[in-house]
Amino acid sequence: MVERDVEIGALELVSGASIPRVVQRVTRYGVEPARDGSNVVFVAHALTGSSRVVEWWDGLVGAGGLFDLEQWCVVGVNVLGGCYGSTGPHSIAPDGRRWGPRFPVVAIADIVEAQRRALRDAFGIERAAIAIGGSLGGQQCLQWARGYDDAVEHAIVVGTYDHLRAQGIAQNGAAREAIRLDPKFRDGWYDEPPVDGLRLARAIATLTYKSEALFERRFGNRPDRAGGDPARNIDDRFDVEGYLAHQGDVFVTRFDANTYRVLTRAMDLFDLRGRERPTGRARLTFVGIAGDQLYPPEFVWSCAARWAEAGWDAAYRHLDSDHGHDAFLAEPESLAALLRDGIGAAVVAPR
Amino acid sequence: MVERDVEIGALELVSGASIPRVVQRVTRYGVEPARDGSNVVFVAHALTGSSRVVEWWDGLVGAGGLFDLEQWCVVGVNVLGGCYGSTGPHSIAPDGRRWGPRFPVVAIADIVEAQRRALRDAFGIERAAIAIGGSLGGQQCLQWARGYDDAVEHAIVVGTYDHLRAQGIAQNGAAREAIRLDPKFRDGWYDEPPVDGLRLARAIATLTYKSEALFERRFGNRPDRAGGDPARNIDDRFDVEGYLAHQGDVFVTRFDANTYRVLTRAMDLFDLRGRERPTGRARLTFVGIAGDQLYPPEFVWSCAARWAEAGWDAAYRHLDSDHGHDAFLAEPESLAALLRDGIGAAVVAPR
Repeated sequence: MVERDVEIGALELVSGASIPRVVQRVTRYGVEPARDGSNVVFVAHALTGSSRVVEWWDGLVGAGGLFDLEQWCVVGVNVLGGCYGSTGPHSIAPDGRRWGPRFPVVAIADIVEAQRRALRDAFGIERAAIAIGGSLGGQQCLQWARGYDDAVEHAIVVGTYDHLRAQGIAQNGAAREAIRLDPKFRDGWYDEPPVDGLRLARAIATLTYKSEALFERRFGNRPDRAGGDPARNIDDRFDVEGYLAHQGDVFVTRFDANTYRVLTRAMDLFDLRGRERPTGRARLTFVGIAGDQLYPPEFVWSCAARWAEAGWDAAYRHLDSDHGHDAFLAEPESLAALLRDGIGAAVVAPR
Repeated sequence: MVERDVEIGALELVSGASIPRVVQRVTRYGVEPARDGSNVVFVAHALTGSSRVVEWWDGLVGAGGLFDLEQWCVVGVNVLGGCYGSTGPHSIAPDGRRWGPRFPVVAIADIVEAQRRALRDAFGIERAAIAIGGSLGGQQCLQWARGYDDAVEHAIVVGTYDHLRAQGIAQNGAAREAIRLDPKFRDGWYDEPPVDGLRLARAIATLTYKSEALFERRFGNRPDRAGGDPARNIDDRFDVEGYLAHQGDVFVTRFDANTYRVLTRAMDLFDLRGRERPTGRARLTFVGIAGDQLYPPEFVWSCAARWAEAGWDAAYRHLDSDHGHDAFLAEPESLAALLRDGIGAAVVAPR
């Protein structure tokens, strides 16, 4: 593993704002990148991931995974606005204070532009054979293909499509509101993190990360396995409430509240509809996930159909899982199997 | 309209707790009740309704509705634990202070037992030709049919079934947590209402009250029609966020936070599975609503099938609407048409 914090200069954002000194944390695994990028896999992380892709996607990357590090050069970049090494709301602004809530609204196009520069500056990588990611990561991969003529040969867009529907925006909005409600948030100028708000935000989000069927099978209407009796005490929990609380507890130790707001907003804003005109020769694979409550697979399918109709080499693959949205993280081996069997040689071995 | 606050004495609850002096607010419309109840319609209200059924269900009750008040005697009762006249957390406990967060956990069976006593004591009504309600109201109607041998002839259970699945419990749990997070809530001992928490709770609930398709059609990913640009300012909103905020603003002026917690818990706890053995001669009609995200219609259907298989005269009707769960409130005329055309004489006119 090689990890670097690269300064890529100033970035003019889609919103019109700009950030003078942008740092990107990039991480590289596996073999040296080929000059033509033919052995390079760019892995885009989802909302709460990092550039260390092996740490959160080891069933997909590494020995026995889809991308063997003896063959492939796998790179990850922490997104602009993130909290795992790249410039974000926790970073110091030109006035010497933290950006905090003043950190500009970031678009997926901004995130990808920063990634492209960082990979070039850190490792001389100008293009990738494959860009792959789920959810917010999938949005980045589609932007890689759409935004640049020759940046990627095959973009694999998992559990997302070319925009976000109102239900998802509403769910993200409720999560942002939960953070704002925590008095410790102090309009984004917190010293002590607003853990109660962030915990609730994560719980609200988790409601759409798993399938309805999985929730039912795992938890039903049973009382919390950790104890208590919700039929007798109003503050005692059902099992599913205990699960959500636990997810929240884990989350607040590792994530930043302002970053949460910035990145969910980037997710909400992403919209390439009407911009399906082919720009390069990239091949697109959209993967819909059964039971996905955030990006339902029928909309992934119709997105793939629209892009194919517009002239792209676009295909739809269906991941059968009862995990729902985060199956790409929870069952990476299923995703690897789907891509290995169904998509062909480009994913199996570099040329 | 005749409205009374009836004291029904002490109530021993399913939880084992008891409430010494229970008051129920009952409201009656239309003609005098027949001794055999053959012209009586009991209308059960949903989570945030009241005994004044004409105020919130006028397409169903009244001139031109399903239940003409020239023919029918229509009665409503504010639920135990409610905040529209019946004993609830805002009421004075035996120690002279408000019950507040000490108000016991209430089950649907408790709510219905209190209703039965109140209707008898206030108006001499021992039975009803029809019990009808949606969501939490539908749970009450099913409990009327299952809990008493001869209380109701025809129970019409709309947009709910005989239990709540984990996803719904989780959503209710997140809403309760939003209330708890508001510092004004003070563990339930508020003087000033925790409006920020209650507003967010309502927003979280509203996520499941409308269909995904309706959210998309009405709001999509457009910016808030009230102004602001979410692509430039992190605190500006999308249109769907503005809608949810508005729903919350209206809600906090009319509802109590402790009641919200008590009644959502009653909804979560309801579970008659395994208790489908017929107990009386009541006919059951379950109405599933297209696009219902809280009680998906496929589960309403399978519930109707289970109860029919157990020996009940149980039928399923499908309400085609793009409103989703709260179609029974938003489009009462569609529900009235479905019941008028599909269910037959029993609903059209009393014997």
